[in-house]
Amino acid sequence: MLTAHTIKVLQSLDKKKFRQKYDLFLVEGNKIICELFNSKFKIKEILSTDPQKLDRTDTPVTHISENELKKISFLQHPKDSVAICYLKSEEKLEDQKIQLVLDGIQDPGNLGTIIRLADWFGIEQIICSEDTVDFYNPKVIMASMGSFTRVNMVYTNLVEYLSNTENVNIGTDMEGENIYTFEKPQKLNLILGNEGNGMRPETEKLLQKNISIPRFGKSQSTESLNVSMAAGIILGQLFRV
Amino acid sequence: MLTAHTIKVLQSLDKKKFRQKYDLFLVEGNKIICELFNSKFKIKEILSTDPQKLDRTDTPVTHISENELKKISFLQHPKDSVAICYLKSEEKLEDQKIQLVLDGIQDPGNLGTIIRLADWFGIEQIICSEDTVDFYNPKVIMASMGSFTRVNMVYTNLVEYLSNTENVNIGTDMEGENIYTFEKPQKLNLILGNEGNGMRPETEKLLQKNISIPRFGKSQSTESLNVSMAAGIILGQLFRV
Repeated sequence: MLTAHTIKVLQSLDKKKFRQKYDLFLVEGNKIICELFNSKFKIKEILSTDPQKLDRTDTPVTHISENELKKISFLQHPKDSVAICYLKSEEKLEDQKIQLVLDGIQDPGNLGTIIRLADWFGIEQIICSEDTVDFYNPKVIMASMGSFTRVNMVYTNLVEYLSNTENVNIGTDMEGENIYTFEKPQKLNLILGNEGNGMRPETEKLLQKNISIPRFGKSQSTESLNVSMAAGIILGQLFRV
Repeated sequence: MLTAHTIKVLQSLDKKKFRQKYDLFLVEGNKIICELFNSKFKIKEILSTDPQKLDRTDTPVTHISENELKKISFLQHPKDSVAICYLKSEEKLEDQKIQLVLDGIQDPGNLGTIIRLADWFGIEQIICSEDTVDFYNPKVIMASMGSFTRVNMVYTNLVEYLSNTENVNIGTDMEGENIYTFEKPQKLNLILGNEGNGMRPETEKLLQKNISIPRFGKSQSTESLNVSMAAGIILGQLFRV
């Protein structure tokens, strides 16, 4: 039986403040939990309505009721298990050939989708501004579908980082170079801005280039593509052999 | 003042059954409502908390309170206005050079995103299986960001349609031809399957070709890209000049 205190602590982990206070975050569903076993993330304990499905000798698995699961899950339709995991200490890898740099992405679904995209294309590291949504946010973890275990996430001062990197800093802009004809540098950062406001002016100053996805539709609407969709289409071009 | 009956009718329009019964659907927010003015959609009435912003002589605009707006809006954070619109009678255009065909897409967010993508690339028509989510669903309308006014949506028996079209029917499949080297036919349908189950076997039988997006990441996960993201990356290639 989970104590009222434990339930309260777990419920608080949807907030960054409490994740940092307890040094913990939650991962839901056996499918994603299994991806943790082969990753650098350490699991403290798994709470499961069906522990036999998670036959592990190295991780304590506690049986809980459906009702307890409902109390601690952040999902509308809770799955089978919840893993309580330790936050990973952050370390920056060397700059990779193709990296994503996020300047103030706020929507957890967008960040999760971008992490999943990075994983698909084998991008090993994403550099985020300090105000980008926390990737331990339960909605990011769910949207990333386990990809967060394979992509190194770094939160840092972007102005400092972009000033010092040797990668070519590339932004997106309606007036930018056409992605179909643009010549790809050897090492690059693709910088993606906030959903509503785009990049910060101080970030924009540090760009060496801008690219754009040509619009074929007749629409005169100012609406652009969603940031994660734009990232997907651009990466589709950057990885073209 | 809105009558209790009117409020009840408007609230029921989140269900397809009632949209069809009343022949009505809702569009929320001045930004999208303005795109209706240049479209084939007919507006019955606009309800607005700030009617002066919508200075129209051809459409009745009624002033409502914030409180009334809250009652009829399907949004968590209601915007300024709600337009009550008539459903459009469905007509199929001739087959276009590049078309999307949806076999049982269920998630309204995915359908909305796909309509927005189609609009971006100038795809004028999407053919849907009869069990694809209704595009008049308020979540689809919101996610499409006004693009539903520019893309013709047809719901039909896919087996019949795919058997008779002269477009080449192309599916997506992990084993399919690489999108980067695949040779594009003159006229094609890109067929996208249901989020969980993919295409129906009877649809699959009618494909002439399969294509796939190469995965560069090392992940052995069976997880594929989300259907709308896959569509975006593939269209990015198909429209490459």
